[in-house]
Amino acid sequence: MIKQISVDERILSANDLAAAENRALLHQHSVHMVNVMAAPGSGKTCLLLAAIRGLKDQVRVGVIEGDIASDIDTVKMRQEGVPAVQINTGGGCHLDALQVRKALEQLPLDEIDLLFVENVGNLICPVGFDLGETTRMAIASIPEGDDKPLKYPSIFHKVDALVISKIDLLPYIAFDLPEYRRLVASIQPELRVFETSVVTGEGISAWVDWLRTLKA
Amino acid sequence: MIKQISVDERILSANDLAAAENRALLHQHSVHMVNVMAAPGSGKTCLLLAAIRGLKDQVRVGVIEGDIASDIDTVKMRQEGVPAVQINTGGGCHLDALQVRKALEQLPLDEIDLLFVENVGNLICPVGFDLGETTRMAIASIPEGDDKPLKYPSIFHKVDALVISKIDLLPYIAFDLPEYRRLVASIQPELRVFETSVVTGEGISAWVDWLRTLKA
Repeated sequence: MIKQISVDERILSANDLAAAENRALLHQHSVHMVNVMAAPGSGKTCLLLAAIRGLKDQVRVGVIEGDIASDIDTVKMRQEGVPAVQINTGGGCHLDALQVRKALEQLPLDEIDLLFVENVGNLICPVGFDLGETTRMAIASIPEGDDKPLKYPSIFHKVDALVISKIDLLPYIAFDLPEYRRLVASIQPELRVFETSVVTGEGISAWVDWLRTLKA
Repeated sequence: MIKQISVDERILSANDLAAAENRALLHQHSVHMVNVMAAPGSGKTCLLLAAIRGLKDQVRVGVIEGDIASDIDTVKMRQEGVPAVQINTGGGCHLDALQVRKALEQLPLDEIDLLFVENVGNLICPVGFDLGETTRMAIASIPEGDDKPLKYPSIFHKVDALVISKIDLLPYIAFDLPEYRRLVASIQPELRVFETSVVTGEGISAWVDWLRTLKA
Protein backbone atom coordinates (compact mmCIF):
# COMPACT_ATOMS: atom_id res chain seq x y z
CA MET A 1 0.00 0.00 0.00
CA ILE A 2 2.94 2.33 0.64
CA LYS A 3 3.95 1.82 -2.97
CA GLN A 4 0.41 2.68 -4.14
CA ILE A 5 0.48 5.91 -2.18
CA SER A 6 3.84 6.96 -3.57
CA VAL A 7 2.78 6.28 -7.15
CA ASP A 8 -0.45 8.21 -6.58
CA GLU A 9 1.61 11.09 -5.25
CA ARG A 10 3.70 11.16 -8.41
CA ILE A 11 0.57 11.02 -10.57
CA LEU A 12 -0.96 13.85 -8.55
CA SER A 13 2.20 15.90 -9.02
CA ALA A 14 2.09 15.32 -12.77
CA ASN A 15 -1.56 16.36 -12.67
CA ASP A 16 -0.79 19.49 -10.67
CA LEU A 17 1.90 20.47 -13.16
CA ALA A 18 -0.49 20.03 -16.10
CA ALA A 19 -3.19 21.92 -14.16
CA ALA A 20 -0.83 24.86 -13.63
CA GLU A 21 -0.04 24.88 -17.36
CA ASN A 22 -3.75 24.76 -18.19
CA ARG A 23 -4.35 27.68 -15.82
CA ALA A 24 -1.61 29.72 -17.52
CA LEU A 25 -2.99 28.90 -20.99
CA LEU A 26 -6.52 29.89 -19.96
CA HIS A 27 -5.28 33.12 -18.38
CA GLN A 28 -3.41 33.97 -21.58
CA HIS A 29 -6.66 33.62 -23.55
CA SER A 30 -8.80 35.32 -20.87
CA VAL A 31 -10.90 32.21 -20.32
CA HIS A 32 -12.48 31.54 -16.91
CA MET A 33 -12.83 27.79 -16.39
CA VAL A 34 -15.40 26.29 -14.02
CA ASN A 35 -14.99 22.68 -12.87
CA VAL A 36 -18.52 21.31 -12.34
CA MET A 37 -18.66 18.27 -10.07
CA ALA A 38 -21.65 16.23 -8.93
CA ALA A 39 -23.12 12.76 -8.48
CA PRO A 40 -24.62 10.96 -11.49
CA GLY A 41 -28.03 12.34 -12.34
CA SER A 42 -27.80 15.53 -10.30
CA GLY A 43 -28.86 17.58 -13.30
CA LYS A 44 -25.47 18.97 -14.38
CA THR A 45 -26.23 18.94 -18.07
CA CYS A 46 -29.69 20.50 -17.78
CA LEU A 47 -28.32 23.25 -15.54
CA LEU A 48 -25.46 23.98 -17.95
CA LEU A 49 -27.94 24.19 -20.82
CA ALA A 50 -29.98 26.69 -18.75
CA ALA A 51 -26.81 28.67 -18.03
CA ILE A 52 -25.85 28.77 -21.71
CA ARG A 53 -29.30 30.13 -22.62
CA GLY A 54 -29.14 32.70 -19.83
CA LEU A 55 -25.63 33.86 -20.64
CA LYS A 56 -25.69 34.01 -24.41
CA ASP A 57 -25.43 37.41 -26.11
CA GLN A 58 -23.30 38.56 -23.15
CA VAL A 59 -20.87 35.77 -22.35
CA ARG A 60 -19.31 33.40 -24.85
CA VAL A 61 -19.54 29.93 -23.35
CA GLY A 62 -17.64 26.73 -24.14
CA VAL A 63 -18.02 23.26 -22.66
CA ILE A 64 -15.80 20.25 -22.03
CA GLU A 65 -17.87 17.15 -21.31
CA GLY A 66 -16.42 14.31 -19.23
CA ASP A 67 -18.11 10.92 -19.33
CA ILE A 68 -17.06 7.32 -19.08
CA ALA A 69 -18.89 6.61 -22.33
CA SER A 70 -21.16 8.31 -24.89
CA ASP A 71 -21.22 11.83 -26.35
CA ILE A 72 -24.90 12.60 -25.78
CA ASP A 73 -24.21 15.65 -23.61
CA THR A 74 -21.76 17.14 -26.10
CA VAL A 75 -24.36 16.80 -28.83
CA LYS A 76 -26.83 18.73 -26.63
CA MET A 77 -24.30 21.52 -26.02
CA ARG A 78 -23.51 21.89 -29.71
CA GLN A 79 -27.22 22.12 -30.44
CA GLU A 80 -27.15 25.29 -28.30
CA GLY A 81 -24.49 26.67 -30.61
CA VAL A 82 -21.56 26.54 -28.21
CA PRO A 83 -18.20 24.89 -28.88
CA ALA A 84 -18.04 21.60 -26.99
CA VAL A 85 -15.50 18.79 -26.75
CA GLN A 86 -16.16 15.32 -25.35
CA ILE A 87 -13.67 13.45 -23.17
CA ASN A 88 -14.49 9.76 -22.74
CA THR A 89 -12.50 8.34 -19.84
CA GLY A 90 -13.06 4.67 -20.68
CA GLY A 91 -13.57 3.45 -17.15
CA GLY A 92 -11.91 6.45 -15.49
CA CYS A 93 -13.81 7.85 -12.54
CA HIS A 94 -12.72 11.51 -12.87
CA LEU A 95 -11.15 13.93 -15.33
CA ASP A 96 -7.48 14.84 -15.04
CA ALA A 97 -5.59 17.91 -16.18
CA LEU A 98 -3.89 16.13 -19.09
CA GLN A 99 -7.22 15.08 -20.55
CA VAL A 100 -8.45 18.65 -20.18
CA ARG A 101 -5.29 19.92 -21.88
CA LYS A 102 -6.07 17.84 -24.96
CA ALA A 103 -9.63 19.17 -24.96
CA LEU A 104 -8.39 22.77 -24.66
CA GLU A 105 -6.30 22.24 -27.77
CA GLN A 106 -9.50 21.49 -29.69
CA LEU A 107 -11.40 24.57 -28.52
CA PRO A 108 -11.34 28.11 -29.99
CA LEU A 109 -10.11 29.67 -26.73
CA ASP A 110 -10.08 33.20 -28.11
CA GLU A 111 -13.81 32.90 -28.72
CA ILE A 112 -14.67 31.69 -25.20
CA ASP A 113 -15.13 33.74 -22.01
CA LEU A 114 -16.52 31.10 -19.68
CA LEU A 115 -15.59 27.44 -20.05
CA PHE A 116 -17.56 24.81 -18.15
CA VAL A 117 -15.96 21.44 -17.52
CA GLU A 118 -18.66 18.91 -16.74
CA ASN A 119 -16.72 16.33 -14.77
CA VAL A 120 -17.56 12.62 -14.59
CA GLY A 121 -20.62 11.96 -12.41
CA ASN A 122 -18.98 11.10 -9.10
CA LEU A 123 -19.08 12.85 -5.70
CA ILE A 124 -15.69 11.54 -4.63
CA CYS A 125 -12.80 11.11 -7.07
CA PRO A 126 -13.01 14.35 -9.12
CA VAL A 127 -12.51 16.43 -5.97
CA GLY A 128 -8.84 15.43 -5.70
CA PHE A 129 -7.81 16.51 -9.20
CA ASP A 130 -7.10 20.13 -10.09
CA LEU A 131 -7.86 20.66 -13.79
CA GLY A 132 -6.56 24.22 -13.96
CA GLU A 133 -9.95 25.75 -13.20
CA THR A 134 -10.47 29.09 -11.48
CA THR A 135 -13.81 28.14 -9.93
CA ARG A 136 -15.07 24.84 -8.54
CA MET A 137 -18.80 24.23 -8.42
CA ALA A 138 -20.77 21.34 -6.95
CA ILE A 139 -24.32 20.44 -7.91
CA ALA A 140 -26.40 18.43 -5.45
CA SER A 141 -29.97 17.44 -6.18
CA ILE A 142 -32.88 17.23 -3.76
CA PRO A 143 -33.57 13.53 -4.55
CA GLU A 144 -30.01 12.63 -3.47
CA GLY A 145 -31.12 13.25 0.10
CA ASP A 146 -30.24 15.68 2.84
CA ASP A 147 -27.51 13.54 4.42
CA LYS A 148 -24.90 13.98 1.69
CA PRO A 149 -22.83 16.65 3.50
CA LEU A 150 -22.34 14.09 6.31
CA LYS A 151 -21.32 11.30 3.95
CA TYR A 152 -19.29 13.21 1.35
CA PRO A 153 -17.87 16.18 3.27
CA SER A 154 -14.85 16.73 1.03
CA ILE A 155 -16.68 18.11 -2.00
CA PHE A 156 -18.66 20.55 0.16
CA HIS A 157 -15.38 21.72 1.66
CA LYS A 158 -13.54 22.26 -1.60
CA VAL A 159 -15.97 24.08 -3.89
CA ASP A 160 -16.58 27.80 -4.38
CA ALA A 161 -20.30 27.42 -4.99
CA LEU A 162 -23.02 24.84 -4.47
CA VAL A 163 -26.05 24.62 -6.73
CA ILE A 164 -28.94 22.71 -5.17
CA SER A 165 -30.93 21.33 -8.09
CA LYS A 166 -34.44 19.92 -8.59
CA ILE A 167 -36.03 21.97 -5.80
CA ASP A 168 -39.35 21.53 -7.65
CA LEU A 169 -39.32 17.98 -6.20
CA LEU A 170 -39.29 19.21 -2.58
CA PRO A 171 -43.06 18.61 -2.13
CA TYR A 172 -42.65 14.94 -3.02
CA ILE A 173 -39.49 14.06 -1.09
CA ALA A 174 -38.56 14.03 2.60
CA PHE A 175 -35.73 16.57 2.47
CA ASP A 176 -35.05 19.00 5.32
CA LEU A 177 -33.67 21.99 3.42
CA PRO A 178 -32.89 24.20 6.45
CA GLU A 179 -31.06 21.28 8.13
CA TYR A 180 -29.20 20.55 4.86
CA ARG A 181 -28.07 24.16 4.60
CA ARG A 182 -27.01 24.06 8.25
CA LEU A 183 -24.89 20.95 7.55
CA VAL A 184 -23.33 22.60 4.50
CA ALA A 185 -22.58 25.75 6.49
CA SER A 186 -20.94 23.67 9.22
CA ILE A 187 -18.45 22.46 6.58
CA GLN A 188 -17.93 25.79 4.81
CA PRO A 189 -19.75 28.73 6.43
CA GLU A 190 -19.12 31.20 3.60
CA LEU A 191 -20.07 28.85 0.74
CA ARG A 192 -22.24 30.46 -1.92
CA VAL A 193 -25.42 28.37 -2.32
CA PHE A 194 -28.08 28.58 -5.04
CA GLU A 195 -31.44 26.78 -4.87
CA THR A 196 -32.60 26.01 -8.39
CA SER A 197 -35.02 24.15 -10.62
CA VAL A 198 -34.68 23.95 -14.38
CA VAL A 199 -38.32 22.75 -14.50
CA THR A 200 -39.88 25.83 -12.86
CA GLY A 201 -36.96 28.17 -13.57
CA GLU A 202 -36.73 29.09 -9.90
CA GLY A 203 -33.32 30.37 -8.83
CA ILE A 204 -31.80 30.08 -12.30
CA SER A 205 -31.46 33.82 -12.94
CA ALA A 206 -29.70 34.40 -9.59
CA TRP A 207 -27.25 31.64 -10.43
CA VAL A 208 -26.73 32.92 -13.99
CA ASP A 209 -26.17 36.45 -12.65
CA TRP A 210 -23.38 35.07 -10.48
CA LEU A 211 -21.91 33.11 -13.41
CA ARG A 212 -21.88 36.34 -15.41
CA THR A 213 -19.61 37.92 -12.81
CA LEU A 214 -17.06 35.14 -13.42
CA LYS A 215 -16.36 36.44 -16.91
CA ALA A 216 -12.63 37.01 -17.10
CA MET B 1 1.25 5.42 -16.54
CA ILE B 2 2.56 1.89 -17.23
CA LYS B 3 3.82 1.79 -13.65
CA GLN B 4 0.39 2.86 -12.35
CA ILE B 5 -1.26 0.07 -14.30
CA SER B 6 1.13 -2.57 -13.01
CA VAL B 7 0.68 -1.45 -9.39
CA ASP B 8 -3.08 -1.42 -9.86
CA GLU B 9 -2.87 -4.95 -11.19
CA ARG B 10 -1.01 -6.10 -8.11
CA ILE B 11 -3.55 -4.38 -5.86
CA LEU B 12 -6.38 -6.00 -7.80
CA SER B 13 -4.72 -9.38 -7.41
CA ALA B 14 -4.38 -8.85 -3.66
CA ASN B 15 -8.03 -7.85 -3.62
CA ASP B 16 -9.05 -10.92 -5.62
CA LEU B 17 -7.16 -13.16 -3.22
CA ALA B 18 -8.87 -11.59 -0.20
CA ALA B 19 -12.23 -11.80 -2.00
CA ALA B 20 -11.72 -15.53 -2.60
CA GLU B 21 -10.92 -15.98 1.09
CA ASN B 22 -14.02 -13.99 2.08
CA ARG B 23 -16.12 -16.16 -0.23
CA ALA B 24 -14.76 -19.34 1.36
CA LEU B 25 -15.38 -17.97 4.87
CA LEU B 26 -18.95 -17.00 3.98
CA HIS B 27 -19.61 -20.39 2.39
CA GLN B 28 -18.32 -22.11 5.52
CA HIS B 29 -20.85 -20.16 7.62
CA SER B 30 -23.68 -20.50 5.04
CA VAL B 31 -23.89 -16.75 4.55
CA HIS B 32 -25.03 -15.34 1.19
CA MET B 33 -23.42 -11.92 0.66
CA VAL B 34 -24.96 -9.29 -1.64
CA ASN B 35 -22.78 -6.38 -2.83
CA VAL B 36 -25.14 -3.40 -3.25
CA MET B 37 -23.79 -0.70 -5.56
CA ALA B 38 -25.35 2.61 -6.59
CA ALA B 39 -24.85 6.33 -7.03
CA PRO B 40 -25.09 8.62 -3.99
CA GLY B 41 -28.71 9.17 -2.98
CA SER B 42 -30.21 6.34 -5.01
CA GLY B 43 -32.06 5.08 -1.95
CA LYS B 44 -29.82 2.15 -0.99
CA THR B 45 -30.31 2.53 2.75
CA CYS B 46 -34.11 2.96 2.61
CA LEU B 47 -34.41 -0.08 0.34
CA LEU B 48 -32.25 -2.20 2.63
CA LEU B 49 -34.37 -1.15 5.62
CA ALA B 50 -37.48 -2.21 3.66
CA ALA B 51 -35.80 -5.54 2.83
CA ILE B 52 -34.90 -6.15 6.48
CA ARG B 53 -38.52 -5.54 7.52
CA GLY B 54 -39.80 -7.81 4.74
CA LEU B 55 -37.35 -10.62 5.43
CA LYS B 56 -37.34 -10.77 9.21
CA ASP B 57 -38.79 -13.84 10.93
CA GLN B 58 -37.69 -15.88 7.90
CA VAL B 59 -34.18 -14.71 6.98
CA ARG B 60 -31.54 -13.51 9.41
CA VAL B 61 -30.01 -10.39 7.87
CA GLY B 62 -26.71 -8.63 8.56
CA VAL B 63 -25.31 -5.44 7.05
CA ILE B 64 -21.89 -3.98 6.30
CA GLU B 65 -22.11 -0.24 5.63
CA GLY B 66 -19.49 1.47 3.47
CA ASP B 67 -19.20 5.24 3.59
CA ILE B 68 -16.46 7.80 3.27
CA ALA B 69 -17.55 9.30 6.57
CA SER B 70 -20.28 8.98 9.25
CA ASP B 71 -22.07 5.96 10.73
CA ILE B 72 -25.64 7.21 10.32
CA ASP B 73 -26.69 4.25 8.16
CA THR B 74 -25.26 1.69 10.57
CA VAL B 75 -27.23 3.29 13.39
CA LYS B 76 -30.42 2.92 11.31
CA MET B 77 -29.68 -0.76 10.63
CA ARG B 78 -29.05 -1.53 14.30
CA GLN B 79 -32.33 0.17 15.19
CA GLU B 80 -33.97 -2.55 13.07
CA GLY B 81 -32.32 -5.13 15.30
CA VAL B 82 -29.83 -6.50 12.77
CA PRO B 83 -26.07 -6.82 13.30
CA ALA B 84 -24.32 -4.05 11.36
CA VAL B 85 -20.71 -2.94 10.98
CA GLN B 86 -19.54 0.41 9.58
CA ILE B 87 -16.54 0.76 7.29
CA ASN B 88 -15.36 4.34 6.86
CA THR B 89 -13.05 4.59 3.87
CA GLY B 90 -11.61 8.02 4.70
CA GLY B 91 -11.54 9.35 1.17
CA GLY B 92 -11.74 5.95 -0.53
CA CYS B 93 -14.21 5.74 -3.39
CA HIS B 94 -15.13 2.03 -3.05
CA LEU B 95 -14.91 -0.87 -0.63
CA ASP B 96 -12.25 -3.54 -1.05
CA ALA B 97 -12.14 -7.15 0.05
CA LEU B 98 -9.66 -6.52 2.87
CA GLN B 99 -11.94 -3.92 4.45
CA VAL B 100 -14.84 -6.36 4.17
CA ARG B 101 -12.70 -9.08 5.75
CA LYS B 102 -12.20 -6.94 8.83
CA ALA B 103 -15.93 -6.24 9.00
CA LEU B 104 -16.72 -9.98 8.68
CA GLU B 105 -14.53 -10.63 11.71
CA GLN B 106 -16.83 -8.35 13.74
CA LEU B 107 -20.09 -10.02 12.67
CA PRO B 108 -21.79 -13.12 14.19
CA LEU B 109 -21.65 -15.05 10.90
CA ASP B 110 -23.40 -18.13 12.30
CA GLU B 111 -26.43 -15.95 13.05
CA ILE B 112 -26.66 -14.43 9.56
CA ASP B 113 -28.23 -15.92 6.41
CA LEU B 114 -28.16 -12.91 4.11
CA LEU B 115 -25.47 -10.24 4.41
CA PHE B 116 -25.89 -6.96 2.56
CA VAL B 117 -22.81 -4.87 1.83
CA GLU B 118 -23.87 -1.31 1.12
CA ASN B 119 -20.95 -0.07 -0.95
CA VAL B 120 -19.78 3.56 -1.14
CA GLY B 121 -22.15 5.70 -3.22
CA ASN B 122 -20.43 5.64 -6.60
CA LEU B 123 -21.54 4.22 -9.95
CA ILE B 124 -17.98 3.64 -11.18
CA CYS B 125 -15.21 2.50 -8.84
CA PRO B 126 -16.96 -0.21 -6.76
CA VAL B 127 -17.72 -2.21 -9.91
CA GLY B 128 -14.06 -3.23 -10.32
CA PHE B 129 -13.60 -4.72 -6.84
CA ASP B 130 -14.82 -8.21 -5.95
CA LEU B 131 -15.61 -8.31 -2.22
CA GLY B 132 -16.31 -12.05 -2.06
CA GLU B 133 -20.02 -11.62 -2.67
CA THR B 134 -22.25 -14.20 -4.34
CA THR B 135 -24.68 -11.65 -5.77
CA ARG B 136 -24.12 -8.15 -7.14
CA MET B 137 -27.02 -5.73 -7.14
CA ALA B 138 -27.29 -2.22 -8.56
CA ILE B 139 -29.82 0.36 -7.48
CA ALA B 140 -30.69 3.18 -9.88
CA SER B 141 -33.22 5.86 -9.01
CA ILE B 142 -35.71 7.56 -11.32
CA PRO B 143 -34.34 11.08 -10.55
CA GLU B 144 -30.89 10.03 -11.79
CA GLY B 145 -32.30 10.11 -15.30
CA ASP B 146 -32.89 7.59 -18.05
CA ASP B 147 -29.51 8.05 -19.75
CA LYS B 148 -27.39 6.32 -17.11
CA PRO B 149 -27.05 2.98 -18.98
CA LEU B 150 -25.45 4.96 -21.82
CA LYS B 151 -23.04 6.80 -19.53
CA TYR B 152 -22.17 4.10 -16.99
CA PRO B 153 -22.55 0.84 -18.93
CA SER B 154 -20.17 -1.21 -16.81
CA ILE B 155 -22.31 -1.49 -13.70
CA PHE B 156 -25.34 -2.55 -15.75
CA HIS B 157 -23.18 -5.22 -17.36
CA LYS B 158 -21.75 -6.66 -14.16
CA VAL B 159 -24.67 -6.99 -11.75
CA ASP B 160 -27.08 -9.88 -11.22
CA ALA B 161 -30.06 -7.66 -10.46
CA LEU B 162 -31.11 -4.04 -10.91
CA VAL B 163 -33.51 -2.33 -8.54
CA ILE B 164 -35.08 0.79 -10.01
CA SER B 165 -35.96 2.98 -7.03
CA LYS B 166 -38.23 5.98 -6.41
CA ILE B 167 -40.77 5.06 -9.12
CA ASP B 168 -43.30 7.14 -7.14
CA LEU B 169 -41.51 10.17 -8.64
CA LEU B 170 -42.26 9.14 -12.25
CA PRO B 171 -45.22 11.58 -12.56
CA TYR B 172 -42.93 14.53 -11.74
CA ILE B 173 -39.85 13.69 -13.80
CA ALA B 174 -39.18 13.27 -17.51
CA PHE B 175 -38.05 9.63 -17.47
CA ASP B 176 -38.81 7.23 -20.30
CA LEU B 177 -39.09 3.94 -18.42
CA PRO B 178 -39.65 1.67 -21.46
CA GLU B 179 -36.67 3.25 -23.23
CA TYR B 180 -34.57 2.89 -20.05
CA ARG B 181 -35.43 -0.79 -19.79
CA ARG B 182 -34.62 -1.22 -23.48
CA LEU B 183 -31.18 0.37 -22.89
CA VAL B 184 -30.56 -1.87 -19.89
CA ALA B 185 -31.61 -4.94 -21.86
CA SER B 186 -29.23 -3.95 -24.67
CA ILE B 187 -26.39 -4.23 -22.15
CA GLN B 188 -27.57 -7.37 -20.36
CA PRO B 189 -30.69 -8.96 -21.88
CA GLU B 190 -31.33 -11.41 -19.03
CA LEU B 191 -30.82 -8.94 -16.17
CA ARG B 192 -33.41 -9.24 -13.41
CA VAL B 193 -35.06 -5.82 -12.94
CA PHE B 194 -37.35 -4.67 -10.11
CA GLU B 195 -39.31 -1.41 -10.17
CA THR B 196 -39.77 -0.18 -6.61
CA SER B 197 -40.82 2.63 -4.31
CA VAL B 198 -40.27 2.59 -0.56
CA VAL B 199 -42.77 5.47 -0.34
CA THR B 200 -45.74 3.63 -1.87
CA GLY B 201 -44.41 0.13 -1.25
CA GLU B 202 -44.85 -0.74 -4.92
CA GLY B 203 -42.61 -3.57 -6.10
CA ILE B 204 -41.01 -4.14 -2.69
CA SER B 205 -42.61 -7.52 -2.04
CA ALA B 206 -41.53 -8.89 -5.44
CA TRP B 207 -37.98 -7.79 -4.71
CA VAL B 208 -38.05 -9.18 -1.16
CA ASP B 209 -39.43 -12.49 -2.49
CA TRP B 210 -36.42 -12.70 -4.78
CA LEU B 211 -34.02 -11.81 -1.93
CA ARG B 212 -35.58 -14.63 0.09
CA THR B 213 -34.56 -17.11 -2.59
CA LEU B 214 -30.92 -16.03 -2.10
CA LYS B 215 -30.85 -17.55 1.38
CA ALA B 216 -27.93 -19.95 1.41
